[in-house]
Amino acid sequence: MTTQLPGPDLESDARVKAVFDDIRATRKTDFINNMWRWLAFDPALLERTWTEVKEVVGKPSSIDPLTKEMIYVAVSVANNCTYCVHSHTAAARAKGMTEAQYGELLAIIGLAGKTNQLATALQVPVDPVFDASQQGA
Amino acid sequence: MTTQLPGPDLESDARVKAVFDDIRATRKTDFINNMWRWLAFDPALLERTWTEVKEVVGKPSSIDPLTKEMIYVAVSVANNCTYCVHSHTAAARAKGMTEAQYGELLAIIGLAGKTNQLATALQVPVDPVFDASQQGA
Amino acid sequence: MTTQLPGPDLESDARVKAVFDDIRATRKTDFINNMWRWLAFDPALLERTWTEVKEVVGKPSSIDPLTKEMIYVAVSVANNCTYCVHSHTAAARAKGMTEAQYGELLAIIGLAGKTNQLATALQVPVDPVFDASQQGA
Amino acid sequence: MTTQLPGPDLESDARVKAVFDDIRATRKTDFINNMWRWLAFDPALLERTWTEVKEVVGKPSSIDPLTKEMIYVAVSVANNCTYCVHSHTAAARAKGMTEAQYGELLAIIGLAGKTNQLATALQVPVDPVFDASQQGA
Amino acid sequence: MTTQLPGPDLESDARVKAVFDDIRATRKTDFINNMWRWLAFDPALLERTWTEVKEVVGKPSSIDPLTKEMIYVAVSVANNCTYCVHSHTAAARAKGMTEAQYGELLAIIGLAGKTNQLATALQVPVDPVFDASQQGA
Amino acid sequence: MTTQLPGPDLESDARVKAVFDDIRATRKTDFINNMWRWLAFDPALLERTWTEVKEVVGKPSSIDPLTKEMIYVAVSVANNCTYCVHSHTAAARAKGMTEAQYGELLAIIGLAGKTNQLATALQVPVDPVFDASQQGA
Repeated sequence: MTTQLPGPDLESDARVKAVFDDIRATRKTDFINNMWRWLAFDPALLERTWTEVKEVVGKPSSIDPLTKEMIYVAVSVANNCTYCVHSHTAAARAKGMTEAQYGELLAIIGLAGKTNQLATALQVPVDPVFDASQQGA
Repeated sequence: MTTQLPGPDLESDARVKAVFDDIRATRKTDFINNMWRWLAFDPALLERTWTEVKEVVGKPSSIDPLTKEMIYVAVSVANNCTYCVHSHTAAARAKGMTEAQYGELLAIIGLAGKTNQLATALQVPVDPVFDASQQGA
Repeated sequence: MTTQLPGPDLESDARVKAVFDDIRATRKTDFINNMWRWLAFDPALLERTWTEVKEVVGKPSSIDPLTKEMIYVAVSVANNCTYCVHSHTAAARAKGMTEAQYGELLAIIGLAGKTNQLATALQVPVDPVFDASQQGA
Repeated sequence: MTTQLPGPDLESDARVKAVFDDIRATRKTDFINNMWRWLAFDPALLERTWTEVKEVVGKPSSIDPLTKEMIYVAVSVANNCTYCVHSHTAAARAKGMTEAQYGELLAIIGLAGKTNQLATALQVPVDPVFDASQQGA
Repeated sequence: MTTQLPGPDLESDARVKAVFDDIRATRKTDFINNMWRWLAFDPALLERTWTEVKEVVGKPSSIDPLTKEMIYVAVSVANNCTYCVHSHTAAARAKGMTEAQYGELLAIIGLAGKTNQLATALQVPVDPVFDASQQGA
Repeated sequence: MTTQLPGPDLESDARVKAVFDDIRATRKTDFINNMWRWLAFDPALLERTWTEVKEVVGKPSSIDPLTKEMIYVAVSVANNCTYCVHSHTAAARAKGMTEAQYGELLAIIGLAGKTNQLATALQVPVDPVFDASQQGA
């Protein structure tokens, strides 16, 4: 099921072709996953989204690639995005996530799901030591 | 604001005292943050929650302690838990999170928030290659 | 903090006065909590909302009043509505919720928060026996 | 998959028939979409829900019909309701939403998804100028 | 679709077998639903989750078994967990939930969904009488 | 409360100053709201976010400015972002949202909150006519 189908010849649009070419070159594969094909109906949205993914996830930085993917999985689970849970879990595995790490990732996500709800239910006041406005931090 | 206040002498309950003592010993500090004080009205819930936190977050494992806290922050943001965002951001800093890492963590959380909504809006079909039931994985 | 303040003389509007009078009569109290005062700027929205609350929560039915409030608390926690968590926790107490029941309610909400995220993370397939379209149910 | 199937002869219930007849008359079509057929097991819930939809979405008002549907899509995406995303995206198209407008709608939803998470992660304090209680507004 | 498939011989792991045996004995059935089979790849996570479910949902307590399941359904709907909505709706029916109760449960969940969003949109201030920190409660 | 405070002299960073100058020029005001001041610790994140806001919300397009803000409010409510609900409700008013429109906006958000939860609870199957993959659309 989907709300919209990609057209038959997406890359006849020059902007779409440029993004798809960059995805192929960056990832060193011919495979374009559905997310990009579904965004292609709006080339500006496609360009902005790919540029941001490349900048945030793709560039070498202070967080290693596998950790980035595990954080992406965690947010996608909490936001309940079926597509994103599948694609980023696969990406985390492709970047080396072991079964042990996957089990731990789930354990943290599940525990956070629980303590998030407990703190919200009790409306626990934030300790002053955690509040930067009370710390001069 | 809160839905319930902790009583005046929480540690007069032996089970509460045992948990609080273990928190102090494990964390090597006298500070007991509000989450635990607010859970103390139900000693069984307090015990179970602390035991799980100690097991999942506290034990040496295949995910390093800072990464665990950053994942905890990510889930807490997506679940919108004010208390948890504050406490786990503080914990991540205490475990060495730099400003650069904090900025990147936010960038990933924000990007995931965006792509999660785009994929949900378009109801993008999961690529077969991401679906374990089609992979024999 | 709020996005809008109620006007100084809400009951000068006849429709608002009628709803407020009905709230007082139904609840046998002069107290009108903020939710209704904030909705009063749009009398049609106020009327529809109060009518539905009275119908769904107020009428004798197959679910007892305390259980209804506990369900309301549970949804409000999961949806993260600060005002609603406070007001419905107070209402549940007013209807007799004990400390033991409150502790159990939190335990269920917390456990559901955890297992919800685990099932979503793993994208566990629904067992055919739980799917009415496969049961003739 | 579903948790419950509609019975074989829903309109043998007079209240259900009356609602279905009103849906057909209001929308000038014989098509009754699944939402209403699934709600029919509880005629009171069906009646209340249809009455509210007719009042809020169907009546001429200060927000035009297409804008209402686009707002409905936006909330349904953020709340992650698969059925509602499909039905309201289709309804927006039926009311004239162009591809350009759909692309922009997604761009706003996605951007909001991102900035919502950033503001929550940073726990940005509300500027006094945005707070009605500090403005006498 | 799923992110991971259970292995072919889950009970060759002694810890998994012990949990599955306990599920069968506790529930007096040979049926192990998918949730447990999917968690089995991480025996520690499986054990912790089952132990908590048994403790929170399975033990006689101050909230009756049917009410517990209805609360579980309510949280699962608000958290949007497809698997959990199916499994806990089925469990509630198995524990005696009538059609009338199901209709009312949905009515409360739906109404809470609405008033939660209204209170959040208006940022309605919590009445002091609902705030335990202002009540000495 | 906040997890981090902006430094004392944000515009000593040239990239931050450039963004702030552009905000002032674009909005024709000296006022920089907190969101931007809080993002300034990470100039790249600040730049990307402002560029996207300017592109998506600020440019003339197929959706008028007031409608864009109302959609932004709707998503922010559903995602439960306190800061964003305040800032975008204020922005919608600044762009001409009337009290009648605000009431209707809330009515749609509230109704969607309700029907979203009902459709999720019942797991209503998507009608084939709403599914583009069955329509050749």
